[in-house]
Amino acid sequence: MRWTDGFIAVDWGTTNRRAYLVDGSSKCTQEFEDAKGVLSVPSGGFLAAVAEIRERLGDKPLLLAGMVGSNRGWVEAPYVACPAGIEELVSGLAGPSDREVIVPGVKDDANGRADVMRGEEVQLLGAIASGQVDPDALVCHPGTHNKWVVVRNGRIESFRTVMTGELFSLLKAHSILSDLLGGEVELGDAFREGVGVGLSSQDLPAELFSVRARVLLGKASRENAASFASGLLIGTDVRIGLSYPTSAQITVMGRPDLTSLYSAAIAAANRTATEVDGERCFLAGVVKIAEAMQ
Amino acid sequence: MRWTDGFIAVDWGTTNRRAYLVDGSSKCTQEFEDAKGVLSVPSGGFLAAVAEIRERLGDKPLLLAGMVGSNRGWVEAPYVACPAGIEELVSGLAGPSDREVIVPGVKDDANGRADVMRGEEVQLLGAIASGQVDPDALVCHPGTHNKWVVVRNGRIESFRTVMTGELFSLLKAHSILSDLLGGEVELGDAFREGVGVGLSSQDLPAELFSVRARVLLGKASRENAASFASGLLIGTDVRIGLSYPTSAQITVMGRPDLTSLYSAAIAAANRTATEVDGERCFLAGVVKIAEAMQ
Repeated sequence: MRWTDGFIAVDWGTTNRRAYLVDGSSKCTQEFEDAKGVLSVPSGGFLAAVAEIRERLGDKPLLLAGMVGSNRGWVEAPYVACPAGIEELVSGLAGPSDREVIVPGVKDDANGRADVMRGEEVQLLGAIASGQVDPDALVCHPGTHNKWVVVRNGRIESFRTVMTGELFSLLKAHSILSDLLGGEVELGDAFREGVGVGLSSQDLPAELFSVRARVLLGKASRENAASFASGLLIGTDVRIGLSYPTSAQITVMGRPDLTSLYSAAIAAANRTATEVDGERCFLAGVVKIAEAMQ
Repeated sequence: MRWTDGFIAVDWGTTNRRAYLVDGSSKCTQEFEDAKGVLSVPSGGFLAAVAEIRERLGDKPLLLAGMVGSNRGWVEAPYVACPAGIEELVSGLAGPSDREVIVPGVKDDANGRADVMRGEEVQLLGAIASGQVDPDALVCHPGTHNKWVVVRNGRIESFRTVMTGELFSLLKAHSILSDLLGGEVELGDAFREGVGVGLSSQDLPAELFSVRARVLLGKASRENAASFASGLLIGTDVRIGLSYPTSAQITVMGRPDLTSLYSAAIAAANRTATEVDGERCFLAGVVKIAEAMQ
Protein backbone atom coordinates (compact mmCIF):
# COMPACT_ATOMS: atom_id res chain seq x y z
CA MET A 1 0.00 0.00 0.00
CA ARG A 2 1.36 3.39 -0.98
CA TRP A 3 0.06 6.20 1.28
CA THR A 4 1.22 8.73 -1.29
CA ASP A 5 -1.47 7.45 -3.66
CA GLY A 6 -3.94 9.30 -1.44
CA PHE A 7 -5.46 8.80 2.00
CA ILE A 8 -8.01 10.16 4.44
CA ALA A 9 -6.77 12.13 7.45
CA VAL A 10 -8.98 12.67 10.49
CA ASP A 11 -8.42 15.17 13.32
CA TRP A 12 -10.58 13.27 15.79
CA GLY A 13 -11.10 15.12 19.05
CA THR A 14 -13.18 14.64 22.16
CA THR A 15 -16.32 16.35 20.84
CA ASN A 16 -15.74 16.84 17.08
CA ARG A 17 -14.00 15.22 14.15
CA ARG A 18 -12.80 16.73 10.90
CA ALA A 19 -11.95 14.45 7.95
CA TYR A 20 -9.94 15.34 4.82
CA LEU A 21 -9.46 13.43 1.57
CA VAL A 22 -5.86 13.96 0.45
CA ASP A 23 -5.03 13.04 -3.14
CA GLY A 24 -1.80 11.66 -4.62
CA SER A 25 -0.38 15.16 -5.05
CA SER A 26 -0.94 15.96 -1.34
CA LYS A 27 -3.90 18.25 -2.04
CA CYS A 28 -7.08 18.17 0.01
CA THR A 29 -9.91 17.59 -2.46
CA GLN A 30 -12.82 17.04 -0.07
CA GLU A 31 -13.50 17.45 3.65
CA PHE A 32 -16.25 17.42 6.24
CA GLU A 33 -16.69 18.09 9.95
CA ASP A 34 -19.26 16.67 12.34
CA ALA A 35 -19.95 16.31 16.06
CA LYS A 36 -19.03 12.60 16.22
CA GLY A 37 -16.16 13.10 18.64
CA VAL A 38 -14.56 10.25 20.55
CA LEU A 39 -16.94 10.53 23.49
CA SER A 40 -19.98 10.09 21.23
CA VAL A 41 -18.78 6.76 19.79
CA PRO A 42 -20.31 3.83 21.70
CA SER A 43 -18.18 0.98 22.95
CA GLY A 44 -17.18 -1.16 19.97
CA GLY A 45 -18.49 1.49 17.58
CA PHE A 46 -15.29 2.67 15.91
CA LEU A 47 -15.48 0.26 12.95
CA ALA A 48 -18.88 1.70 12.07
CA ALA A 49 -17.69 5.27 12.69
CA VAL A 50 -14.75 4.68 10.34
CA ALA A 51 -16.89 2.98 7.68
CA GLU A 52 -19.07 6.08 7.64
CA ILE A 53 -16.05 8.25 6.89
CA ARG A 54 -15.04 6.01 3.98
CA GLU A 55 -18.60 6.08 2.62
CA ARG A 56 -18.33 9.84 2.36
CA LEU A 57 -14.71 10.22 1.21
CA GLY A 58 -13.80 6.92 -0.46
CA ASP A 59 -12.16 3.59 0.39
CA LYS A 60 -8.71 4.92 1.26
CA PRO A 61 -6.23 4.24 4.08
CA LEU A 62 -6.93 6.30 7.20
CA LEU A 63 -4.49 8.38 9.24
CA LEU A 64 -6.13 9.34 12.56
CA ALA A 65 -4.88 11.89 15.09
CA GLY A 66 -6.16 13.34 18.36
CA MET A 67 -8.09 11.78 21.23
CA VAL A 68 -8.97 8.77 19.04
CA GLY A 69 -5.57 7.47 20.18
CA SER A 70 -6.17 8.07 23.89
CA ASN A 71 -7.32 5.58 26.50
CA ARG A 72 -10.86 6.75 25.77
CA GLY A 73 -10.44 6.30 22.00
CA TRP A 74 -10.26 3.40 19.55
CA VAL A 75 -6.76 1.98 19.98
CA GLU A 76 -4.34 3.59 22.40
CA ALA A 77 -1.24 5.06 20.77
CA PRO A 78 1.11 5.63 23.72
CA TYR A 79 2.78 9.05 24.07
CA VAL A 80 6.22 9.40 22.53
CA ALA A 81 8.79 11.33 24.54
CA CYS A 82 10.29 14.74 23.81
CA PRO A 83 12.24 15.66 21.79
CA ALA A 84 9.69 14.59 19.18
CA GLY A 85 9.57 15.30 15.46
CA ILE A 86 7.85 13.64 12.50
CA GLU A 87 10.23 10.69 12.76
CA GLU A 88 9.35 10.01 16.41
CA LEU A 89 5.63 10.27 15.65
CA VAL A 90 6.00 7.74 12.82
CA SER A 91 7.93 5.36 15.07
CA GLY A 92 5.04 5.49 17.56
CA LEU A 93 2.18 4.91 15.11
CA ALA A 94 -0.41 2.42 16.33
CA GLY A 95 -3.71 1.14 15.06
CA PRO A 96 -5.91 -1.84 14.49
CA SER A 97 -4.50 -2.50 10.99
CA ASP A 98 -2.07 -1.04 8.46
CA ARG A 99 -5.04 0.65 6.75
CA GLU A 100 -6.13 2.43 9.93
CA VAL A 101 -3.16 4.11 11.56
CA ILE A 102 -3.24 6.29 14.69
CA VAL A 103 -0.75 9.05 15.48
CA PRO A 104 0.66 8.99 19.05
CA GLY A 105 0.53 11.94 21.44
CA VAL A 106 3.66 13.49 22.93
CA LYS A 107 4.78 13.54 26.56
CA ASP A 108 7.24 15.78 28.37
CA ASP A 109 8.35 13.91 31.47
CA ALA A 110 11.98 14.96 31.77
CA ASN A 111 13.37 16.52 34.95
CA GLY A 112 10.31 15.92 37.08
CA ARG A 113 7.91 17.47 34.60
CA ALA A 114 4.64 15.78 33.64
CA ASP A 115 2.77 17.02 30.62
CA VAL A 116 0.96 15.55 27.63
CA MET A 117 -0.48 16.65 24.30
CA ARG A 118 -2.56 14.77 21.75
CA GLY A 119 -3.57 16.35 18.44
CA GLU A 120 -1.62 19.59 18.68
CA GLU A 121 1.64 17.82 17.69
CA VAL A 122 0.39 17.19 14.13
CA GLN A 123 -0.59 20.84 13.60
CA LEU A 124 2.66 22.01 15.12
CA LEU A 125 4.99 19.76 13.14
CA GLY A 126 2.94 20.51 10.04
CA ALA A 127 3.48 24.21 10.59
CA ILE A 128 7.22 23.64 10.81
CA ALA A 129 7.22 21.39 7.73
CA SER A 130 5.36 24.01 5.71
CA GLY A 131 7.64 26.83 6.85
CA GLN A 132 5.04 28.67 8.89
CA VAL A 133 6.94 28.10 12.14
CA ASP A 134 10.73 28.35 12.44
CA PRO A 135 12.66 25.16 13.31
CA ASP A 136 13.70 27.06 16.47
CA ALA A 137 10.68 28.79 17.96
CA LEU A 138 8.39 29.25 20.93
CA VAL A 139 4.87 28.27 19.91
CA CYS A 140 1.71 29.15 21.79
CA HIS A 141 -1.31 26.99 20.87
CA PRO A 142 -4.40 28.37 22.66
CA GLY A 143 -7.60 26.42 23.11
CA THR A 144 -9.32 24.67 26.02
CA HIS A 145 -5.83 23.81 27.21
CA ASN A 146 -3.18 26.14 25.88
CA LYS A 147 0.18 24.57 25.01
CA TRP A 148 3.47 26.50 25.13
CA VAL A 149 5.95 24.54 23.03
CA VAL A 150 9.69 25.00 22.73
CA VAL A 151 10.69 23.92 19.21
CA ARG A 152 14.36 23.16 18.56
CA ASN A 153 15.85 21.81 15.31
CA GLY A 154 12.32 21.24 14.06
CA ARG A 155 11.30 19.00 16.95
CA ILE A 156 9.16 19.47 20.07
CA GLU A 157 11.80 19.95 22.75
CA SER A 158 9.61 20.70 25.78
CA PHE A 159 6.10 21.99 26.46
CA ARG A 160 3.72 23.12 29.13
CA THR A 161 -0.08 23.09 29.29
CA VAL A 162 -2.03 25.97 30.86
CA MET A 163 -5.75 25.41 31.57
CA THR A 164 -6.78 28.92 30.56
CA GLY A 165 -9.70 28.18 28.26
CA GLU A 166 -11.23 25.61 30.56
CA LEU A 167 -10.88 27.86 33.64
CA PHE A 168 -12.65 30.69 31.83
CA SER A 169 -15.47 28.34 30.79
CA LEU A 170 -15.86 26.96 34.33
CA LEU A 171 -15.97 30.44 35.87
CA LYS A 172 -18.45 31.63 33.25
CA ALA A 173 -20.80 28.67 33.59
CA HIS A 174 -20.72 27.75 37.27
CA SER A 175 -19.02 30.27 39.58
CA ILE A 176 -19.88 33.34 41.66
CA LEU A 177 -18.57 35.31 38.65
CA SER A 178 -21.12 33.74 36.25
CA ASP A 179 -23.46 36.71 36.15
CA LEU A 180 -20.51 38.97 35.25
CA LEU A 181 -18.89 36.88 32.52
CA GLY A 182 -21.76 36.48 30.06
CA GLY A 183 -20.67 39.35 27.80
CA GLU A 184 -18.43 39.23 24.75
CA VAL A 185 -14.67 39.36 25.28
CA GLU A 186 -13.33 42.36 23.40
CA LEU A 187 -9.76 43.32 22.61
CA GLY A 188 -9.97 46.73 24.29
CA ASP A 189 -8.93 48.62 27.41
CA ALA A 190 -10.55 46.25 29.92
CA PHE A 191 -8.87 43.22 28.32
CA ARG A 192 -5.52 45.03 28.34
CA GLU A 193 -5.98 46.04 31.98
CA GLY A 194 -6.58 42.38 32.88
CA VAL A 195 -3.52 41.34 30.87
CA GLY A 196 -1.42 43.83 32.84
CA VAL A 197 -2.56 42.31 36.14
CA GLY A 198 -2.00 38.75 34.89
CA LEU A 199 1.51 39.54 33.63
CA SER A 200 2.60 41.11 36.92
CA SER A 201 0.63 39.30 39.63
CA GLN A 202 1.37 35.78 40.80
CA ASP A 203 -1.91 35.58 42.69
CA LEU A 204 -4.51 34.41 40.17
CA PRO A 205 -7.06 32.91 42.62
CA ALA A 206 -7.12 36.23 44.49
CA GLU A 207 -7.23 38.39 41.36
CA LEU A 208 -10.22 36.38 40.13
CA PHE A 209 -12.28 37.35 43.18
CA SER A 210 -11.39 40.99 42.55
CA VAL A 211 -13.31 40.76 39.25
CA ARG A 212 -16.45 40.70 41.39
CA ALA A 213 -15.26 43.11 44.09
CA ARG A 214 -14.29 45.75 41.53
CA VAL A 215 -17.84 45.79 40.18
CA LEU A 216 -19.45 45.76 43.65
CA LEU A 217 -17.31 48.73 44.71
CA GLY A 218 -17.96 50.68 41.51
CA LYS A 219 -14.33 50.49 40.36
CA ALA A 220 -15.15 48.71 37.10
CA SER A 221 -18.22 48.30 34.95
CA ARG A 222 -20.20 45.10 34.78
CA GLU A 223 -20.08 45.25 30.96
CA ASN A 224 -16.28 45.03 30.95
CA ALA A 225 -15.95 42.17 33.45
CA ALA A 226 -15.71 39.36 30.87
CA SER A 227 -12.98 41.15 28.93
CA PHE A 228 -11.06 41.97 32.12
CA ALA A 229 -11.29 38.38 33.39
CA SER A 230 -10.21 36.99 30.01
CA GLY A 231 -7.25 39.38 30.04
CA LEU A 232 -6.36 38.32 33.56
CA LEU A 233 -6.30 34.62 32.60
CA ILE A 234 -4.50 35.14 29.28
CA GLY A 235 -2.00 37.52 30.89
CA THR A 236 -1.25 34.87 33.51
CA ASP A 237 -0.90 32.27 30.76
CA VAL A 238 1.54 34.46 28.79
CA ARG A 239 3.59 35.16 31.94
CA ILE A 240 3.92 31.39 32.41
CA GLY A 241 4.79 30.76 28.76
CA LEU A 242 7.38 33.51 28.58
CA SER A 243 9.19 32.08 31.61
CA TYR A 244 10.74 29.61 29.16
CA PRO A 245 14.31 30.94 28.82
CA THR A 246 14.29 31.43 25.07
CA SER A 247 14.49 34.46 22.85
CA ALA A 248 13.20 32.52 19.83
CA GLN A 249 10.52 33.92 17.58
CA ILE A 250 7.03 33.39 19.02
CA THR A 251 4.19 31.99 16.91
CA VAL A 252 0.60 31.81 18.11
CA MET A 253 -1.23 29.01 16.35
CA GLY A 254 -4.96 28.38 16.62
CA ARG A 255 -8.36 29.92 15.93
CA PRO A 256 -7.99 33.54 14.76
CA ASP A 257 -10.29 34.92 17.52
CA LEU A 258 -7.98 33.41 20.15
CA THR A 259 -4.65 34.11 18.46
CA SER A 260 -5.46 37.83 18.28
CA LEU A 261 -6.05 37.97 22.07
CA TYR A 262 -2.84 36.06 22.83
CA SER A 263 -0.89 38.11 20.35
CA ALA A 264 -2.01 41.32 22.11
CA ALA A 265 -1.05 39.90 25.52
CA ILE A 266 2.38 38.88 24.20
CA ALA A 267 2.85 42.41 22.83
CA ALA A 268 1.98 43.80 26.28
CA ALA A 269 4.89 41.73 27.60
CA ASN A 270 7.18 43.46 25.06
CA ARG A 271 7.56 40.46 22.78
CA THR A 272 6.15 40.04 19.31
CA ALA A 273 4.29 37.10 17.89
CA THR A 274 3.14 36.02 14.45
CA GLU A 275 -0.26 34.36 14.10
CA VAL A 276 -0.96 31.13 12.20
CA ASP A 277 -4.31 29.41 11.58
CA GLY A 278 -3.85 26.00 13.20
CA GLU A 279 -6.43 24.00 11.27
CA ARG A 280 -4.64 24.39 7.94
CA CYS A 281 -1.37 23.21 9.49
CA PHE A 282 -2.94 19.85 10.31
CA LEU A 283 -2.98 18.93 6.62
CA ALA A 284 0.70 19.76 6.21
CA GLY A 285 1.41 17.55 9.24
CA VAL A 286 -0.44 14.48 8.02
CA VAL A 287 1.09 14.76 4.55
CA LYS A 288 4.56 14.80 6.15
CA ILE A 289 3.71 11.73 8.25
CA ALA A 290 2.34 9.88 5.20
CA GLU A 291 5.53 10.63 3.27
CA ALA A 292 7.69 9.37 6.12
CA MET A 293 5.72 6.11 6.26
CA GLN A 294 6.87 5.03 2.80
CA MET B 1 -35.50 49.03 73.57
CA ARG B 2 -32.54 47.53 75.38
CA TRP B 3 -30.64 45.02 73.26
CA THR B 4 -28.90 43.75 76.38
CA ASP B 5 -32.25 42.39 77.58
CA GLY B 6 -31.81 39.68 74.98
CA PHE B 7 -32.02 39.38 71.20
CA ILE B 8 -31.90 36.96 68.32
CA ALA B 9 -28.78 36.89 66.17
CA VAL B 10 -28.80 35.35 62.68
CA ASP B 11 -25.80 34.39 60.56
CA TRP B 12 -27.71 34.51 57.27
CA GLY B 13 -25.71 33.30 54.33
CA THR B 14 -26.39 32.56 50.70
CA THR B 15 -27.55 28.98 51.18
CA ASN B 16 -28.02 28.53 54.95
CA ARG B 17 -29.00 30.49 58.04
CA ARG B 18 -28.20 29.87 61.69
CA ALA B 19 -30.19 31.65 64.40
CA TYR B 20 -29.29 32.06 68.09
CA LEU B 21 -31.37 33.28 71.02
CA VAL B 22 -29.09 35.35 73.25
CA ASP B 23 -30.36 36.09 76.78
CA GLY B 24 -29.77 39.16 79.01
CA SER B 25 -26.52 37.71 80.31
CA SER B 26 -25.14 37.22 76.76
CA LYS B 27 -25.59 33.47 76.84
CA CYS B 28 -27.00 31.52 73.92
CA THR B 29 -29.97 29.55 75.25
CA GLN B 30 -31.41 28.18 72.01
CA GLU B 31 -30.38 27.92 68.36
CA PHE B 32 -31.30 26.31 65.05
CA GLU B 33 -29.95 26.02 61.54
CA ASP B 34 -31.82 25.50 58.28
CA ALA B 35 -31.37 25.77 54.52
CA LYS B 36 -33.37 29.00 54.15
CA GLY B 37 -30.46 31.04 52.86
CA VAL B 38 -30.87 34.39 51.17
CA LEU B 39 -31.25 32.89 47.70
CA SER B 40 -34.20 30.73 48.81
CA VAL B 41 -36.25 33.69 50.08
CA PRO B 42 -38.70 34.86 47.40
CA SER B 43 -39.00 38.52 46.48
CA GLY B 44 -40.85 40.31 49.28
CA GLY B 45 -40.51 37.23 51.49
CA PHE B 46 -38.17 38.47 54.21
CA LEU B 47 -40.95 39.59 56.61
CA ALA B 48 -42.34 36.06 56.58
CA ALA B 49 -38.85 34.54 56.85
CA VAL B 50 -38.16 36.71 59.89
CA ALA B 51 -41.55 36.00 61.49
CA GLU B 52 -40.74 32.31 61.28
CA ILE B 53 -37.51 32.84 63.22
CA ARG B 54 -39.40 34.72 65.96
CA GLU B 55 -42.01 31.96 66.14
CA ARG B 56 -39.25 29.53 66.99
CA LEU B 57 -37.06 31.68 69.26
CA GLY B 58 -39.38 34.41 70.65
CA ASP B 59 -40.45 37.97 69.89
CA LYS B 60 -37.07 39.63 70.33
CA PRO B 61 -35.12 42.25 68.37
CA LEU B 62 -33.09 40.77 65.53
CA LEU B 63 -29.44 41.33 64.67
CA LEU B 64 -28.74 39.96 61.18
CA ALA B 65 -25.35 39.42 59.55
CA GLY B 66 -24.10 37.97 56.27
CA MET B 67 -25.52 38.04 52.77
CA VAL B 68 -28.91 39.19 54.11
CA GLY B 69 -27.33 42.68 53.95
CA SER B 70 -26.13 42.34 50.35
CA ASN B 71 -27.80 43.56 47.19
CA ARG B 72 -29.41 40.12 46.93
CA GLY B 73 -30.66 40.24 50.54
CA TRP B 74 -33.38 42.04 52.50
CA VAL B 75 -32.07 45.57 53.00
CA GLU B 76 -28.64 46.51 51.69
CA ALA B 77 -26.16 47.51 54.40
CA PRO B 78 -23.33 49.18 52.45
CA TYR B 79 -19.77 48.05 53.11
CA VAL B 80 -17.82 50.06 55.70
CA ALA B 81 -14.20 50.83 54.86
CA CYS B 82 -11.05 49.46 56.49
CA PRO B 83 -9.80 49.93 59.13
CA ALA B 84 -12.99 48.51 60.63
CA GLY B 85 -13.72 47.44 64.22
CA ILE B 86 -16.91 46.96 66.20
CA GLU B 87 -17.44 50.74 66.29
CA GLU B 88 -17.32 51.05 62.48
CA LEU B 89 -19.73 48.13 62.06
CA VAL B 90 -22.18 49.75 64.49
CA SER B 91 -21.95 53.07 62.66
CA GLY B 92 -22.92 51.25 59.44
CA LEU B 93 -25.90 49.28 60.75
CA ALA B 94 -28.90 49.32 58.44
CA GLY B 95 -32.27 47.68 58.44
CA PRO B 96 -35.97 48.06 57.85
CA SER B 97 -36.66 49.06 61.50
CA ASP B 98 -34.87 49.44 64.82
CA ARG B 99 -36.07 45.94 65.75
CA GLU B 100 -34.48 44.35 62.66
CA VAL B 101 -30.92 45.53 62.31
CA ILE B 102 -28.45 44.40 59.66
CA VAL B 103 -24.66 44.39 60.10
CA PRO B 104 -22.70 45.90 57.17
CA GLY B 105 -19.93 44.12 55.31
CA VAL B 106 -16.39 45.48 55.09
CA LYS B 107 -14.53 46.71 52.02
CA ASP B 108 -10.82 47.17 51.39
CA ASP B 109 -10.48 49.67 48.55
CA ALA B 110 -7.36 51.57 49.55
CA ASN B 111 -4.37 51.90 47.18
CA GLY B 112 -6.08 50.42 44.15
CA ARG B 113 -7.27 47.31 45.96
CA ALA B 114 -10.82 46.02 45.61
CA ASP B 115 -12.06 43.43 48.06
CA VAL B 116 -15.18 42.75 50.11
CA MET B 117 -16.33 40.51 52.96
CA ARG B 118 -19.78 39.99 54.44
CA GLY B 119 -20.29 37.73 57.45
CA GLU B 120 -16.68 36.92 58.28
CA GLU B 121 -16.21 40.33 59.97
CA VAL B 122 -18.56 39.41 62.85
CA GLN B 123 -16.74 36.13 63.54
CA LEU B 124 -13.39 37.83 63.28
CA LEU B 125 -14.14 40.79 65.56
CA GLY B 126 -15.87 38.37 67.94
CA ALA B 127 -12.72 36.28 68.11
CA ILE B 128 -10.72 39.39 68.97
CA ALA B 129 -13.28 40.53 71.57
CA SER B 130 -13.19 37.12 73.24
CA GLY B 131 -9.41 36.97 73.29
CA GLN B 132 -9.09 34.12 70.80
CA VAL B 133 -7.29 36.30 68.27
CA ASP B 134 -4.63 38.86 69.17
CA PRO B 135 -5.42 42.55 68.51
CA ASP B 136 -2.43 42.40 66.14
CA ALA B 137 -2.62 39.27 64.04
CA LEU B 138 -2.81 37.71 60.61
CA VAL B 139 -6.06 35.74 60.34
CA CYS B 140 -6.83 33.12 57.71
CA HIS B 141 -10.55 32.34 57.36
CA PRO B 142 -10.97 29.43 54.91
CA GLY B 143 -14.24 28.54 53.22
CA THR B 144 -15.67 28.91 49.73
CA HIS B 145 -13.72 32.16 49.57
CA ASN B 146 -10.79 32.26 51.95
CA LYS B 147 -10.05 35.63 53.60
CA TRP B 148 -6.59 36.64 54.75
CA VAL B 149 -7.06 39.49 57.24
CA VAL B 150 -4.46 41.80 58.75
CA VAL B 151 -5.70 42.79 62.21
CA ARG B 152 -4.14 45.85 63.84
CA ASN B 153 -5.18 47.40 67.16
CA GLY B 154 -8.19 45.11 67.19
CA ARG B 155 -9.51 46.31 63.85
CA ILE B 156 -9.57 44.88 60.31
CA GLU B 157 -6.73 46.79 58.66
CA SER B 158 -6.64 45.12 55.25
CA PHE B 159 -7.71 41.83 53.70
CA ARG B 160 -7.59 39.70 50.60
CA THR B 161 -9.94 37.03 49.28
CA VAL B 162 -8.65 33.86 47.58
CA MET B 163 -11.18 31.69 45.70
CA THR B 164 -9.62 28.41 46.80
CA GLY B 165 -12.71 26.52 47.99
CA GLU B 166 -14.78 27.52 44.98
CA LEU B 167 -12.02 26.62 42.50
CA PHE B 168 -11.66 23.17 44.04
CA SER B 169 -15.44 22.64 43.82
CA LEU B 170 -15.57 23.79 40.19
CA LEU B 171 -12.70 21.52 39.18
CA LYS B 172 -14.21 18.58 41.04
CA ALA B 173 -17.69 19.00 39.60
CA HIS B 174 -17.18 20.17 36.03
CA SER B 175 -13.60 19.97 34.72
CA ILE B 176 -11.31 17.53 32.93
CA LEU B 177 -10.01 16.70 36.43
CA SER B 178 -13.46 15.64 37.68
CA ASP B 179 -12.86 11.91 37.46
CA LEU B 180 -9.67 12.34 39.51
CA LEU B 181 -10.97 14.56 42.31
CA GLY B 182 -13.83 12.47 43.67
CA GLY B 183 -11.82 10.96 46.53
CA GLU B 184 -11.42 12.23 50.09
CA VAL B 185 -8.80 14.90 50.77
CA GLU B 186 -6.40 13.52 53.35
CA LEU B 187 -3.69 15.30 55.31
CA GLY B 188 -0.88 13.03 54.13
CA ASP B 189 2.09 12.89 51.79
CA ALA B 190 0.16 13.69 48.59
CA PHE B 191 -1.44 16.77 50.20
CA ARG B 192 1.97 17.93 51.46
CA GLU B 193 3.54 17.39 48.03
CA GLY B 194 0.81 19.60 46.50
CA VAL B 195 1.39 22.23 49.19
CA GLY B 196 5.08 22.28 48.33
CA VAL B 197 4.31 22.96 44.67
CA GLY B 198 1.73 25.63 45.55
CA LEU B 199 4.12 27.42 47.91
CA SER B 200 6.94 27.57 45.37
CA SER B 201 5.24 27.76 41.95
CA GLN B 202 3.55 30.86 40.59
CA ASP B 203 1.93 28.92 37.77
CA LEU B 204 -1.32 27.53 39.20
CA PRO B 205 -3.24 27.09 35.90
CA ALA B 206 -0.34 25.01 34.55
CA GLU B 207 0.18 23.03 37.77
CA LEU B 208 -3.53 22.11 37.73
CA PHE B 209 -3.19 20.39 34.36
CA SER B 210 -0.24 18.43 35.71
CA VAL B 211 -2.62 16.77 38.20
CA ARG B 212 -3.98 14.87 35.20
CA ALA B 213 -0.69 14.43 33.35
CA ARG B 214 1.02 12.96 36.44
CA VAL B 215 -1.60 10.23 36.59
CA LEU B 216 -1.58 9.57 32.82
CA LEU B 217 2.21 9.18 32.88
CA GLY B 218 2.21 6.95 35.96
CA LYS B 219 4.01 9.50 38.13
CA ALA B 220 1.23 9.72 40.73
CA SER B 221 -1.65 7.52 41.74
CA ARG B 222 -5.25 8.29 40.86
CA GLU B 223 -6.26 7.75 44.52
CA ASN B 224 -4.02 10.60 45.68
CA ALA B 225 -5.06 13.14 43.04
CA ALA B 226 -7.72 14.89 45.18
CA SER B 227 -5.30 15.35 48.09
CA PHE B 228 -2.54 16.58 45.79
CA ALA B 229 -4.86 19.06 44.04
CA SER B 230 -6.20 20.34 47.36
CA GLY B 231 -2.63 20.80 48.58
CA LEU B 232 -1.74 22.65 45.39
CA LEU B 233 -4.63 25.09 45.81
CA ILE B 234 -4.15 25.58 49.56
CA GLY B 235 -0.38 25.94 49.15
CA THR B 236 -0.99 28.65 46.54
CA ASP B 237 -3.47 30.32 48.89
CA VAL B 238 -0.98 30.28 51.80
CA ARG B 239 1.77 31.69 49.56
CA ILE B 240 -0.55 34.59 48.71
CA GLY B 241 -1.58 35.16 52.33
CA LEU B 242 1.96 35.08 53.68
CA SER B 243 3.01 37.75 51.18
CA TYR B 244 1.49 40.23 53.64
CA PRO B 245 4.57 41.82 55.23
CA THR B 246 3.73 40.97 58.83
CA SER B 247 5.33 38.73 61.41
CA ALA B 248 2.20 38.76 63.59
CA GLN B 249 0.81 35.55 65.06
CA ILE B 250 -1.31 33.62 62.56
CA THR B 251 -4.74 32.28 63.45
CA VAL B 252 -6.77 30.01 61.19
CA MET B 253 -10.47 30.39 61.90
CA GLY B 254 -13.19 28.20 60.43
CA ARG B 255 -14.42 24.62 60.24
CA PRO B 256 -11.97 22.24 61.93
CA ASP B 257 -11.59 20.02 58.81
CA LEU B 258 -10.40 23.05 56.84
CA THR B 259 -8.33 24.72 59.55
CA SER B 260 -6.23 21.57 59.97
CA LEU B 261 -5.33 21.56 56.25
CA TYR B 262 -4.43 25.26 56.26
CA SER B 263 -2.50 24.90 59.48
CA ALA B 264 -0.39 22.13 57.91
CA ALA B 265 0.26 24.25 54.81
CA ILE B 266 1.30 27.22 56.96
CA ALA B 267 3.68 24.95 58.88
CA ALA B 268 5.18 23.83 55.55
CA ALA B 269 5.96 27.51 54.93
CA ASN B 270 7.84 27.63 58.25
CA ARG B 271 5.23 29.66 60.13
CA THR B 272 2.96 28.46 62.89
CA ALA B 273 -0.74 28.96 63.27
CA THR B 274 -3.30 28.44 65.98
CA GLU B 275 -6.74 27.12 65.04
CA VAL B 276 -10.07 28.58 66.17
CA ASP B 277 -13.58 27.29 65.48
CA GLY B 278 -15.23 30.18 63.65
CA GLU B 279 -18.88 29.44 64.36
CA ARG B 280 -18.53 30.04 68.11
CA CYS B 281 -16.83 33.39 67.50
CA PHE B 282 -19.95 34.68 65.77
CA LEU B 283 -21.80 34.80 69.10
CA ALA B 284 -19.02 36.82 70.74
CA GLY B 285 -19.19 39.24 67.82
CA VAL B 286 -22.94 39.86 67.93
CA VAL B 287 -22.87 40.31 71.72
CA LYS B 288 -20.16 42.96 71.31
CA ILE B 289 -22.21 44.75 68.64
CA ALA B 290 -25.34 44.64 70.80
CA GLU B 291 -23.43 46.13 73.75
CA ALA B 292 -22.08 48.92 71.55
CA MET B 293 -25.58 49.80 70.34
CA GLN B 294 -26.72 50.91 73.79
